[in-house]
Amino acid sequence: MSTIKELKAKIKQLEEELALEKSRSTTKAEPHGPGRDKIAKMSAEVVDSNPYSRLMALKRMGIVNNYEQIRDFSVAVVGVGGVGSVTAEMLTRCGIGKLILFDYDKVELANMNRLFFQPHQSGMSKVEAAQKTLSFINPDVIIETHNYNITTMANFDNFMETIRTGSIDGNGPVNLILSCVDNFEARMAINDACNELNQNWIESGVSENAVSGHIQLIKPGETACFGCAPPLVVAENIDEKTLKREGVCAASLPTTMGVVAGLLVQNTLKYLLGFGNVTEYLGYSALQDFFPTMLMKPNPQCTGRYCVERQADYQKKLASQPKEEVVEEKEEEIKHDTNDWAIELVDETNPEDLVSKVDESLAPGIKHSYDKPVESKGEEASETVGHTEESMDDLMAKLKGL
Amino acid sequence: MSTIKELKAKIKQLEEELALEKSRSTTKAEPHGPGRDKIAKMSAEVVDSNPYSRLMALKRMGIVNNYEQIRDFSVAVVGVGGVGSVTAEMLTRCGIGKLILFDYDKVELANMNRLFFQPHQSGMSKVEAAQKTLSFINPDVIIETHNYNITTMANFDNFMETIRTGSIDGNGPVNLILSCVDNFEARMAINDACNELNQNWIESGVSENAVSGHIQLIKPGETACFGCAPPLVVAENIDEKTLKREGVCAASLPTTMGVVAGLLVQNTLKYLLGFGNVTEYLGYSALQDFFPTMLMKPNPQCTGRYCVERQADYQKKLASQPKEEVVEEKEEEIKHDTNDWAIELVDETNPEDLVSKVDESLAPGIKHSYDKPVESKGEEASETVGHTEESMDDLMAKLKGL
Repeated sequence: MSTIKELKAKIKQLEEELALEKSRSTTKAEPHGPGRDKIAKMSAEVVDSNPYSRLMALKRMGIVNNYEQIRDFSVAVVGVGGVGSVTAEMLTRCGIGKLILFDYDKVELANMNRLFFQPHQSGMSKVEAAQKTLSFINPDVIIETHNYNITTMANFDNFMETIRTGSIDGNGPVNLILSCVDNFEARMAINDACNELNQNWIESGVSENAVSGHIQLIKPGETACFGCAPPLVVAENIDEKTLKREGVCAASLPTTMGVVAGLLVQNTLKYLLGFGNVTEYLGYSALQDFFPTMLMKPNPQCTGRYCVERQADYQKKLASQPKEEVVEEKEEEIKHDTNDWAIELVDETNPEDLVSKVDESLAPGIKHSYDKPVESKGEEASETVGHTEESMDDLMAKLKGL
Repeated sequence: MSTIKELKAKIKQLEEELALEKSRSTTKAEPHGPGRDKIAKMSAEVVDSNPYSRLMALKRMGIVNNYEQIRDFSVAVVGVGGVGSVTAEMLTRCGIGKLILFDYDKVELANMNRLFFQPHQSGMSKVEAAQKTLSFINPDVIIETHNYNITTMANFDNFMETIRTGSIDGNGPVNLILSCVDNFEARMAINDACNELNQNWIESGVSENAVSGHIQLIKPGETACFGCAPPLVVAENIDEKTLKREGVCAASLPTTMGVVAGLLVQNTLKYLLGFGNVTEYLGYSALQDFFPTMLMKPNPQCTGRYCVERQADYQKKLASQPKEEVVEEKEEEIKHDTNDWAIELVDETNPEDLVSKVDESLAPGIKHSYDKPVESKGEEASETVGHTEESMDDLMAKLKGL
């Protein structure tokens, strides 16, 4: 039997071990424990302890006039995968006011070949894992998560409502939606919601072979919507049928996804804070380091009812404005019989060449993500443009059938 | 006094607490505890638990023939800051064989506006913090860290030795060095080491105003070394004097640094695994989304003794090769009196235009990082090219004075 002395020694030893273990779990580096305190006001003070000094320096450097305004903006990120998670992290580190994350997937070890998620998060929902890491990195950002598939009817209504009231003060819509989804159906749902709400958004995509990607700014009525024409992708020598086919185990690289997320958030910052030029379409071909750009006007024959409404709104707006805008209006009247899509493309690959020209061909390095839609029954280019009565489901079924 | 029974109960309680605490520190989400087990052989199996399935899919997609060879490569990353840390993470997630990290800085909260480091790591050395996170993300990667400034004399020797013996099996040099440093002195140290060792490397840089960056592949004797000419940077309307001045609180953005890291590692993958085209110089102008490219030949009047030796080696190698290479040799003889640098520039911004042309002007969007070197005393373009006897210290002192 043990003596009292031995037992007391054992207790002392266990108490020491426990104290050590407890101190470990608090001091040990771990992302869901205490990180840094909240910061009430962004400061430009140059001290090592200020997480915003290098961002506020953008003002001193003459790049941004109003960096601290970033706290007033709310951005929705739909899809928190290879592109979306890095997108969310970049915005978080930039100190965005509010981030609304949508996804319904779980983290898997198969996702570890992209930035952001870590092995211990396997099995967690992506939005929950992201929220924990992001609020640890920057507790000043309001992070709201929605763990559902936006394409089902009930969730779509919820998605619409969240977008409509997602501003930092809850009294208006989000400032921008970033689409980081990996399938056509989800992109069409975002497109429908944005056309109806007159909400600007940026679509992003990475090819199945992992070596190209793109971002595309969509302003309802002003630029082509996602349904106006077959979406554009960067042309590779390898055959790609769609932006991303569901059920295919696509290749992916942290590099391509990191670059696309970087270009996406960089353009988001330019859009929100009003510096530089926001690029409407920017492609990335990794094999050649080629970055084609395009301008795409909306298609008057778009089958999306709200897209056509937004086009009419935009034309009214243009008509009520001074003459500078006339050049753009004239172009709208040009028709190309050989252009099945009735859309107009302006190549702006060469910044020197930024004249508005209409061409049937796409900018070098860009192609449509598929060849041709099903024949539209009786809807010819000569038909008058009216509101189509197609529901989102009809439209999606039609587009999925392509 | 306590009875034996009481003491035993106390022991039982402490043992339970300890077990709970220990289980917490392993199950709790934290990056330095157990993540995933090592994987002996890369598999292409499409299961959620395989962290390499999406990378091995590059073979099925026809992009890379030999993805698993990535395990045979060793890459050194010098500078583990805003670009270097993301670079290291991308390579780690790609499953690189060995990563050798050099830095002598500590993590600060002021670094939280870039990807990778997290607030709880403040005060840790960057290499130590990076090693912990990276080996947690992918335990298959061999990570070696060097916590010193490579520019001091003793450390420079150590750096050279590490590069010379850094291959995966320790019997040869590293496969590539990636420069992710933020100052001129460290770049010149890497340049000197690489010229002497005939080691290929890629330099990277981000401007002080955070909205432009570049990568530049340097093959000693074949392309311009970092000392051959004033380094090229992407031209912005804003005045920038150097690549990055020490002591200045520069602005930085996770977007620009993420894009530069993505382009750097993408070209590293292309270089190591032999797919696509490795771009020799690629710039990124964030305000315009403009990506200028260049080819730069070495300067026969380079003040670097080993650069000139490598140029002679390369010319010998070209001379011993079949005639296809003659075109390139001819160009070497062209001299421009008005080109102070005696370097030749080939604009390859337009991939269609890939003819070898010699031009005094830089590709659109690119400029030298400073205007002109100090007058070289008596070293005119007409002087014969010989080995300069300047030491690295002399050379660096000269270049720092610019």
